[in-house]
Amino acid sequence: MSDISAVKDALRRQHIETPSWAYGNSGTRFKVFAQPGVPRTPQEKIDDAAQVHRYTGVAPTVALHIPWDRVDDYGALAEYARAAGVRVGAINSNVFQDDDYKLGSVTNPDPAVRKKALNHLLECVDIMDATGSRDLKLWFSDGINYPGQDDIHARQDRLAEALSAVYERLGDDQRFLLEYKFFEPAFYATDVPDWGTAYAHCLRLGPKAQVVVDTGHHAPGTNIEFIVAFLLREGKLGGFDFNSRFYADDDLMVGAADPFQLFRIMHEVVRGGGYDEQTGVAFMLDQCHNIEPKIQGQIRSVMNVQEATAKALLVDADALRAAQRDGDVLAANAVLMDAYNTDVRPLLAELREEMGLDPDPIAAYLRSGYLEKVIEERKDGTAAGWGA
Amino acid sequence: MSDISAVKDALRRQHIETPSWAYGNSGTRFKVFAQPGVPRTPQEKIDDAAQVHRYTGVAPTVALHIPWDRVDDYGALAEYARAAGVRVGAINSNVFQDDDYKLGSVTNPDPAVRKKALNHLLECVDIMDATGSRDLKLWFSDGINYPGQDDIHARQDRLAEALSAVYERLGDDQRFLLEYKFFEPAFYATDVPDWGTAYAHCLRLGPKAQVVVDTGHHAPGTNIEFIVAFLLREGKLGGFDFNSRFYADDDLMVGAADPFQLFRIMHEVVRGGGYDEQTGVAFMLDQCHNIEPKIQGQIRSVMNVQEATAKALLVDADALRAAQRDGDVLAANAVLMDAYNTDVRPLLAELREEMGLDPDPIAAYLRSGYLEKVIEERKDGTAAGWGA
Amino acid sequence: MSDISAVKDALRRQHIETPSWAYGNSGTRFKVFAQPGVPRTPQEKIDDAAQVHRYTGVAPTVALHIPWDRVDDYGALAEYARAAGVRVGAINSNVFQDDDYKLGSVTNPDPAVRKKALNHLLECVDIMDATGSRDLKLWFSDGINYPGQDDIHARQDRLAEALSAVYERLGDDQRFLLEYKFFEPAFYATDVPDWGTAYAHCLRLGPKAQVVVDTGHHAPGTNIEFIVAFLLREGKLGGFDFNSRFYADDDLMVGAADPFQLFRIMHEVVRGGGYDEQTGVAFMLDQCHNIEPKIQGQIRSVMNVQEATAKALLVDADALRAAQRDGDVLAANAVLMDAYNTDVRPLLAELREEMGLDPDPIAAYLRSGYLEKVIEERKDGTAAGWGA
Amino acid sequence: MSDISAVKDALRRQHIETPSWAYGNSGTRFKVFAQPGVPRTPQEKIDDAAQVHRYTGVAPTVALHIPWDRVDDYGALAEYARAAGVRVGAINSNVFQDDDYKLGSVTNPDPAVRKKALNHLLECVDIMDATGSRDLKLWFSDGINYPGQDDIHARQDRLAEALSAVYERLGDDQRFLLEYKFFEPAFYATDVPDWGTAYAHCLRLGPKAQVVVDTGHHAPGTNIEFIVAFLLREGKLGGFDFNSRFYADDDLMVGAADPFQLFRIMHEVVRGGGYDEQTGVAFMLDQCHNIEPKIQGQIRSVMNVQEATAKALLVDADALRAAQRDGDVLAANAVLMDAYNTDVRPLLAELREEMGLDPDPIAAYLRSGYLEKVIEERKDGTAAGWGA
Repeated sequence: MSDISAVKDALRRQHIETPSWAYGNSGTRFKVFAQPGVPRTPQEKIDDAAQVHRYTGVAPTVALHIPWDRVDDYGALAEYARAAGVRVGAINSNVFQDDDYKLGSVTNPDPAVRKKALNHLLECVDIMDATGSRDLKLWFSDGINYPGQDDIHARQDRLAEALSAVYERLGDDQRFLLEYKFFEPAFYATDVPDWGTAYAHCLRLGPKAQVVVDTGHHAPGTNIEFIVAFLLREGKLGGFDFNSRFYADDDLMVGAADPFQLFRIMHEVVRGGGYDEQTGVAFMLDQCHNIEPKIQGQIRSVMNVQEATAKALLVDADALRAAQRDGDVLAANAVLMDAYNTDVRPLLAELREEMGLDPDPIAAYLRSGYLEKVIEERKDGTAAGWGA
Repeated sequence: MSDISAVKDALRRQHIETPSWAYGNSGTRFKVFAQPGVPRTPQEKIDDAAQVHRYTGVAPTVALHIPWDRVDDYGALAEYARAAGVRVGAINSNVFQDDDYKLGSVTNPDPAVRKKALNHLLECVDIMDATGSRDLKLWFSDGINYPGQDDIHARQDRLAEALSAVYERLGDDQRFLLEYKFFEPAFYATDVPDWGTAYAHCLRLGPKAQVVVDTGHHAPGTNIEFIVAFLLREGKLGGFDFNSRFYADDDLMVGAADPFQLFRIMHEVVRGGGYDEQTGVAFMLDQCHNIEPKIQGQIRSVMNVQEATAKALLVDADALRAAQRDGDVLAANAVLMDAYNTDVRPLLAELREEMGLDPDPIAAYLRSGYLEKVIEERKDGTAAGWGA
Repeated sequence: MSDISAVKDALRRQHIETPSWAYGNSGTRFKVFAQPGVPRTPQEKIDDAAQVHRYTGVAPTVALHIPWDRVDDYGALAEYARAAGVRVGAINSNVFQDDDYKLGSVTNPDPAVRKKALNHLLECVDIMDATGSRDLKLWFSDGINYPGQDDIHARQDRLAEALSAVYERLGDDQRFLLEYKFFEPAFYATDVPDWGTAYAHCLRLGPKAQVVVDTGHHAPGTNIEFIVAFLLREGKLGGFDFNSRFYADDDLMVGAADPFQLFRIMHEVVRGGGYDEQTGVAFMLDQCHNIEPKIQGQIRSVMNVQEATAKALLVDADALRAAQRDGDVLAANAVLMDAYNTDVRPLLAELREEMGLDPDPIAAYLRSGYLEKVIEERKDGTAAGWGA
Repeated sequence: MSDISAVKDALRRQHIETPSWAYGNSGTRFKVFAQPGVPRTPQEKIDDAAQVHRYTGVAPTVALHIPWDRVDDYGALAEYARAAGVRVGAINSNVFQDDDYKLGSVTNPDPAVRKKALNHLLECVDIMDATGSRDLKLWFSDGINYPGQDDIHARQDRLAEALSAVYERLGDDQRFLLEYKFFEPAFYATDVPDWGTAYAHCLRLGPKAQVVVDTGHHAPGTNIEFIVAFLLREGKLGGFDFNSRFYADDDLMVGAADPFQLFRIMHEVVRGGGYDEQTGVAFMLDQCHNIEPKIQGQIRSVMNVQEATAKALLVDADALRAAQRDGDVLAANAVLMDAYNTDVRPLLAELREEMGLDPDPIAAYLRSGYLEKVIEERKDGTAAGWGA
């Protein structure tokens, strides 16, 4: 896509969703370092998300997490978001923080626990009806810590049953996105540990069941862009949960650990049609900021995705195809690296000015005094967090 | 299965296939250390495989590798095997050692190379017709070393086309087993890197396409027994290529690096019906002995699989189910560990004597003088190897 | 050590320390599942630790964690322990849970924070004076999450300075054990990430600085027994923090994930003199039980170490040396495997009876009614935990 | 280093050594794909290395590998190199390709084999005397494949003895660089598996024993730049063997898999004084080109190191220190990322023109017709390779 104006058009319509929980306190099992100015309510989280959109122009939606964002009137919450300049995006279910879920939620050996978990999932679809959300994100922490603890096979049966019930409940314009994770919090066997498992369940159910790729949820060395390419080819890539990691954690700012990998992923997205206007691929951030400021961290993350996307759009697809066809290994690699090595920051600064934004979102946000304001406003009350 | 005689019956009908290439010279990219007495012909490899069966009683077939085991008359070779006391098992294709395959075989950007590779695969089915083999093992070294080198998406299209052509050629009683491998020799993206990819291709084609799990071919930390349980539940587990590894290699004797993992795998096999009499699951060794004596290494490997199987058969399934149902984590784990901690060597010695074998296969083999004999007989000529 | 009575003597004097924090509530960043009957005070933790010793006979000490076990009078606490049938073991420092430590403790760029952290470490030595403890365990969660966040080089300077100050404070019969950890909670660079770093600092300081090997704190695939052998040869192995893991967590019961690895570790300990009577090697558990019952989990863990030790003591050292000297790869491996494959549970049952204990510690503990009793006694008040 | 002319000066005196074996044929254990035009003699390898220097201007030396580059007169070979426009650099020993080394070289249980290996190492120092080389690179493939195969402890004793003998033989201006490798070709325990082992041996011997960091030789997830910073701080970083990898291989072009990592490494080198004029840090490539053209691959690799170095030199050290001192996580990270995101290719093109070189080395090399010429000249005879 050598035409710069076409690249800019594509970047202008980019849509990156930020997660409400990124604005609350979070940490590790060792310590949660609380930050000043953190939201106390879902509405305040939405206010913070609106700041990210205000300075980047490409983060128009915010994902909710139930029960962390539980309110009485979800329609009113959606209205609140619109008034703040954003919209409610995906609904994220949570079946991992109730004492009943110690040995699993939808895969628990106890049918009563399974029913409770399923009811929560169905409630999330009710919320989607109220907020107008298209996507239900399903992440199951379910798994076992010790060999023999439970029956791997039987747990898949239970999982299939729950997924089927949720699928049946979905409306015509609704989907669920099934997330996989290599491990944690289960330490021996996780019930949806890899893309193959998620894919097999989704394939059986139909087009409203799609796989979501969380970039932090893979075994060491896994080629994530291969999975992206494969799922796009199969029509089964529902979206991304973006974040990054050096080790097994999954909460660093996307692109912070391996910006080249993020570029390669976005290259496969573009190549496979996942960035086309009609695509159903959702681009979401799923990361929490343990030690860095939260709103600023989200702005930086959105910019990282933007930069990787811009580079991916700049790949000379014709030259690449020609070198690949000729079997010229170094020339083909060089085409890709040329795009990656390009400094796209001037292009993005220009684009922002055309969009009526400050060319430097971080500087503009810092100048705005928003953080100082909310630190003052929110100094009383209980800061939002995971409640772990 | 607390009934010892039932356990013994199950062990008596065990069938572990050894690979012809395990008897030839092999090594690393740094050095192949040649051993004395190594076979020079497919017939001599079969002779060595027959020794393994002679002392273990549970290794009645030998897999062939084409072209390493190319002969003019495969029917005669099958006859030779029968005379030696074994049968020809799976046919392994090889599309990785021709200069034309530098950038891939069935996924090569060049259609002429793809055609050549496909013809080899079809020739392997011809050989199966002649040998009466049921299984065609397909391993593709295809992949790319550098980002951009070739199009990941297009290579899947080419792979699907080749697999479909092979599938069509299969006879009624024939199958192909598609092998996946995390990496090597491709160093950036492998065309069949994980079970999900193999599964998706096999699912599309039908019941004669099955996935084979090579125990050495996974990302660090991968829970292999989960994959085994999943594929069994889906009816897509065609068999195993057994070996073991501490790192990224895959040629140590099965069970040598992590005997507990091998036990857990066999436990899932037993639990999922993969050890039942009518099962189509093939248990094959796929390992080469770089520094240890080859026949002895195969005998030890067969015994390792036997021991893991015996322990898996000894698991008290009723007690396990009860503890799992009760959510008693430690009790359930203890049931499994009880079986694992059992010393099954006396049981297997007894079984061998009942089968008319020496209770100590290694000692009996060493006493036999076979190795000394073949060292003398085979001192001239060219020892078989990989020809890399 | 083929002499069974010598093996039994060695096992009789085994000493495995349990950690006070294993008896409190713990979990993952996602959820802490509280358990009934959990201790509310350091004294109650000691009571629970005494149960483990009561049924195993080889867990006579309990490690404390400051400030989780902070009391006014440590001498009195030590007396309490003696009355309960155990002794206070190592003192574990904690410089990771104060808000000031967000960017590090002894390596923090802020000198005031560094001073605060150092003062805590020195306070721990004061506590050792009061409890009569020999060992101070130093684990630093210090590190950085993002490239550039702080200066790796300067942080080593600060670390060296703090370690030196602690070293100077140690009494003649006191040591510190420096723990390394591959990652977590720091996600990009950890200040003591590997044994080499810990070793280099300890070497510079002298004999009272020793390295502690936490079995869960290594990169995937690391050969831990090599490190054990190396440190023993250098006289720098201070002890173990035992636990196990399949992935990156480090809180499963020792031996639960890879019992063969635990055996190999104990084999190197025995071979290198680390199990001799005069050895300074401390054998400690450092694991928390997220979903399994805590006291029972500690008993099981102690038994796992016992079993691995028994097998290691059974290795036929003469036969091993002979096979190694002859370069007989399979024979040497077989000597080791013979010991590993031995079922040592009857031997340990016999030993326990000789020691006046129940041959089955788990069954005896469960029969005792202790857990039911403390559930009742401890139903009010606040259960101990990490306070993260 | 914000002064562009100072950055250019630093880049002008860069010195990256290429390895003679990169110009010969190489491959994996599965297949060596021979390339046309490959050198047949050490002299022809030097000719190819001279091409790399001719077009990059920063690759003035070529490392030799004994016995692959064995000649009768090493003084004459050094003269040949000078005439070709380059110099002989490090001498690489090879104690892994003789049949005697099957169970190890300097750590072999057989004293006769150890002596043979040591003699080879000493011969390499003789060669250094003749070529005027400063550095002897020691890589030992020594290790064991199976637990119990040999005694880990005793092998360290033997290693120490051999290293000491080599150390004694070194001249006043000579050093040895001890290389570590996580695994391969040994598959269970490697005798020098990590930097800690190499460091401990070198520390004991003295200043002429230094550690060399091969960027491909670490466990998954290892923070290599931490090791670089640590060794520089200790005065024990002798140099680099550059290459890159996605998995366990170590032969991709440096910077190809993770250019950000290469930048972080060079940042620590610059920060720790390892790029200063008087530094003893050697920057060497150690990679072979399995499928890509060899000379072109070396040019690309040299350019990758140049680009990473240029970015590292552009880091605003004052701004970085200030942000680090203030504990501003995101600002500090941003300073580093600003340098990384800079497109340094224009700067390097300018530098080359100032040095009298073509601004585009790859294009200039391809235009030169050198490859076509040597394909014709070298079509007869035996191409150089590893001889595995």
